[in-house]
Amino acid sequence: MKYSQLFIPTLKEAPADAEIASHKYMVRAGLIRQLASGIYSTLPLGLRVLRKIEKIVREEMNAIGGQEVFLPSIQPSELWEESGRWEFYGKELLRIRDRHDREFCYGPTHEEVITDMVRKEVRSYRQLPLTFYQIQTKFRDEVRPRFGIMRGREFMMKDAYSFHVDEESVLETYEDMARAYSNIFERCGLEYKKVEADTGSIGGAHSHEFHVLADSGEDEIGFCNSCGYASNLELAQRRIDQETNRPESGKTPKDIEQIPTPGKKTIADVASFLSVSEKEVIKTVVFESPSGLVAGLCRGDREINPIKLKKLIDCEWLHPADQNKQDGNIPFGYIGPIGLDMPKYADAEVMKMPQAVAGANKVDFHLGGIHPPRDLTGIETGDICYAKAEDPCPQCTSGSLQVKRGIELGHIFVLGEKYSKAMKAHFLDSNGKEKPMIMGCYGIGIGRTAAAAIEQLHDEKGIRWPKNIAPFQIEIMPLNMKDSATVEAAESLYNKMNEKGLEVLLDDRADRAGIKFKDADLLGLPLQLIIGPKTLKEGMVEIRIRNTGEAKSIPLDQAFEETLKLLDEL
Amino acid sequence: MKYSQLFIPTLKEAPADAEIASHKYMVRAGLIRQLASGIYSTLPLGLRVLRKIEKIVREEMNAIGGQEVFLPSIQPSELWEESGRWEFYGKELLRIRDRHDREFCYGPTHEEVITDMVRKEVRSYRQLPLTFYQIQTKFRDEVRPRFGIMRGREFMMKDAYSFHVDEESVLETYEDMARAYSNIFERCGLEYKKVEADTGSIGGAHSHEFHVLADSGEDEIGFCNSCGYASNLELAQRRIDQETNRPESGKTPKDIEQIPTPGKKTIADVASFLSVSEKEVIKTVVFESPSGLVAGLCRGDREINPIKLKKLIDCEWLHPADQNKQDGNIPFGYIGPIGLDMPKYADAEVMKMPQAVAGANKVDFHLGGIHPPRDLTGIETGDICYAKAEDPCPQCTSGSLQVKRGIELGHIFVLGEKYSKAMKAHFLDSNGKEKPMIMGCYGIGIGRTAAAAIEQLHDEKGIRWPKNIAPFQIEIMPLNMKDSATVEAAESLYNKMNEKGLEVLLDDRADRAGIKFKDADLLGLPLQLIIGPKTLKEGMVEIRIRNTGEAKSIPLDQAFEETLKLLDEL
Repeated sequence: MKYSQLFIPTLKEAPADAEIASHKYMVRAGLIRQLASGIYSTLPLGLRVLRKIEKIVREEMNAIGGQEVFLPSIQPSELWEESGRWEFYGKELLRIRDRHDREFCYGPTHEEVITDMVRKEVRSYRQLPLTFYQIQTKFRDEVRPRFGIMRGREFMMKDAYSFHVDEESVLETYEDMARAYSNIFERCGLEYKKVEADTGSIGGAHSHEFHVLADSGEDEIGFCNSCGYASNLELAQRRIDQETNRPESGKTPKDIEQIPTPGKKTIADVASFLSVSEKEVIKTVVFESPSGLVAGLCRGDREINPIKLKKLIDCEWLHPADQNKQDGNIPFGYIGPIGLDMPKYADAEVMKMPQAVAGANKVDFHLGGIHPPRDLTGIETGDICYAKAEDPCPQCTSGSLQVKRGIELGHIFVLGEKYSKAMKAHFLDSNGKEKPMIMGCYGIGIGRTAAAAIEQLHDEKGIRWPKNIAPFQIEIMPLNMKDSATVEAAESLYNKMNEKGLEVLLDDRADRAGIKFKDADLLGLPLQLIIGPKTLKEGMVEIRIRNTGEAKSIPLDQAFEETLKLLDEL
Repeated sequence: MKYSQLFIPTLKEAPADAEIASHKYMVRAGLIRQLASGIYSTLPLGLRVLRKIEKIVREEMNAIGGQEVFLPSIQPSELWEESGRWEFYGKELLRIRDRHDREFCYGPTHEEVITDMVRKEVRSYRQLPLTFYQIQTKFRDEVRPRFGIMRGREFMMKDAYSFHVDEESVLETYEDMARAYSNIFERCGLEYKKVEADTGSIGGAHSHEFHVLADSGEDEIGFCNSCGYASNLELAQRRIDQETNRPESGKTPKDIEQIPTPGKKTIADVASFLSVSEKEVIKTVVFESPSGLVAGLCRGDREINPIKLKKLIDCEWLHPADQNKQDGNIPFGYIGPIGLDMPKYADAEVMKMPQAVAGANKVDFHLGGIHPPRDLTGIETGDICYAKAEDPCPQCTSGSLQVKRGIELGHIFVLGEKYSKAMKAHFLDSNGKEKPMIMGCYGIGIGRTAAAAIEQLHDEKGIRWPKNIAPFQIEIMPLNMKDSATVEAAESLYNKMNEKGLEVLLDDRADRAGIKFKDADLLGLPLQLIIGPKTLKEGMVEIRIRNTGEAKSIPLDQAFEETLKLLDEL
């Protein structure tokens, strides 16, 4: 393609609201333009990238037996009422009334629609398993859209859904999907991590996310520096050894004593006032649960993870208690496990504190000399805190956790019977017995993958596309369009490369060399083939590798072969 | 692909609301399923057809320099207010409020969005012309969706928009588009007509539609049986020769006389009561216009075409007068041109009636003996009637019009300055003068093209796909899956054809031969390769051409070459 025939409106300045590199560069390189908050038009160069990602996704989905469908974006409310999500989904669901005042939504996801389709067509175990996928526009009405197409409202997604007779079958497809997703991100040239994840508003039993590592990521990923363990930090576990943190040998635990701590409400204040470390203070946090107030205990340097605590308690929901609502019965700031009249759950680490301070449940007082194994008996314990960097790996004995930021590109779930039960998607098993189907669902953000590639690989000059998802692979840059030898050499190489099926952009603009260099670095095609009048006189041209910055002079008559070779090596 | 691995839920019965063949067969052959009124899911086999049409469309758009973009489906109301269509578009526009109560619509078309994009990026005549296209989902909230995806609410469309410095440039792209559209429909294997068309709610100056001929079409197309003239019947012209319809030679026109015609209000009643032909009665129709009531006159066997009359009068709008609103001043049923006090416009044919009857503008009376050239002087005349079959062609001297029904698949428009003026999409011309860009727009219904192919080519057994848009080109049908020789022969051919890149469906279901035959005819793949145990023993298989019904027996070892040959000839 010739640059002059392609609409590439590059900009010197990024939009004022662009906070991250991918947002800035996608606008500056003329890949996207904003139409409204969180809603973007994809321009020709941007669409070439999306189509390449789509093609990779499609090939990997087909390879594991996925069947492509195309489901409507506008979905009737009745189906969402059946699944219970019409109420549950909240304001992110864009609700619509048609001319006859019937209620619809713009699909943020398609579990209901596909389950409705399958329940109408599938009767027998003989028709299962089935895996469907689509590449379709979704809408999620984010409160605060930002980061360009990374967290837009209207966005392109590959979503897949599978239907099975049992758990074994869904797990087989789940593993196929996990492998397909790994292939996809590898083929896209991205460094990624498959991590354990929470199931969130989709629901279900078993879930992994695929994250691309990048400093601008919205999530924190914990992963072992020794074994393969990786998890969203929201969910990451940690090993709490029995052996560590024993009381100093020879010391006898002290007795409990009440200590005045006037006005010292925070862990930091108490520790500093009593000249102890935060690791020697027990933090006590009160939550509301369906069965009333409960308390979670952890070491003062830790934070309680409500998702983990909810699992330990095995309750439907959990919110931090509202300090204003409790009518002064609870002495917030001075709460402690001893004498607190509500169910208590302790992080396992607490039981290994040799000696601890905690609130006395009395304003302006704490208790010292607490020896948890002696004083906190009968309290249920478990891992209820967020993992942190350097925590011991929960999976191997030698490793410890590292923490990096990640961008979630893919998410796979075993849904189980959540939707099939609610929507009566039943089948007859081999014994003629009616059962709900077992489901899985699997998503990848297409536009987000493009944006994440930029986040992971850009530099201060612009984008550095991985070979397989670059809009073109080679940019030929004749530096002076008035020099006929330069133009001739450039066009001859361009034609030859096009004939061989290479994807080449010829910068045939009459602009100065400086502009061509700047735009080429901004656009980020993997190889730049630079043809200047001076060097050409000596029969030489230059090839630059955008990603590494390496450049070399080669004879013009070897430029084609050398380009092929470098492209192969990338 | 193997049938057993593909989700093809065929049905014996069509849905109760399916009125036309394409709707019935698309559901019965498992190509689509309805989700809500006018909203359909596309299943794997249906999507294969749409993707093939998309590919053809994309290739032809790229060939004329079209640049593919992808514009948002959700569009802010502000842009539609700028163009004036927020009010004008009416209830077909699906209006939406987001969580912040801002107004949007689901795009039924994208003139506003693309004009907004171009006005922000294009400043100079040097950047023009530009042609953009996209393949995107649209929504039009039809009052009464019907005919399956033919007139659905959510549907897939290719829309293109071009921007130019002048009329000459837009006409060049317009002609490129017209050729590209012809290529598209030819490559899709469809018999089509390019016809002159009205510009409707899109607006603009110049417009053609592309219709596929089919009895179930919603439009009527008039076309010459001799030259290339073709037009939507809404707009079709006719030649009104000076020479025809002269008074009988020698006869002197009679004088006007008042005739009692008690209770005879319709043309048919009056003609029958007075024993004259309807061609001898003048029909007088009253319309409301911006400047008050006007009358249109035509021969009794004709219908006045309001679009043509509006053009002759050169007014903004025209509606038939409401008979109940006129307070009895106008004697409806007895109106005639003589003595009627309002501007009158006559079809040119009226002036050539030798002698005519018309209303006397007095209840229960008509006037006889009218000789229009003598009695209706000073009335503006023109072609204001609908053309009919057998009217003389307006373009050549020898042909006459034929009328057939058509399905509108494509529509191209010269928009002129309509949007660019309203939305201030200006550029600087070569003299530095600011001017509005000249625009064109061009649409093709993707799903509609698939449905129209079925309308044009089906028979009573099912679909008959043209080769280039068939979901697969060949169906291999082993008639008995328990016979190992049959299965072996079928699979060996299947593998060989797949290797050679042919698109083959192998019906590997354990079902009876009768079911396979019925489903194969319903699915409508162009070639059926039938392998039965009996004939196979003699080394023979059968090839059937779905479109013609031709069948021939051939030796198994020639089946591959013969299939290639037949496919080539199709």
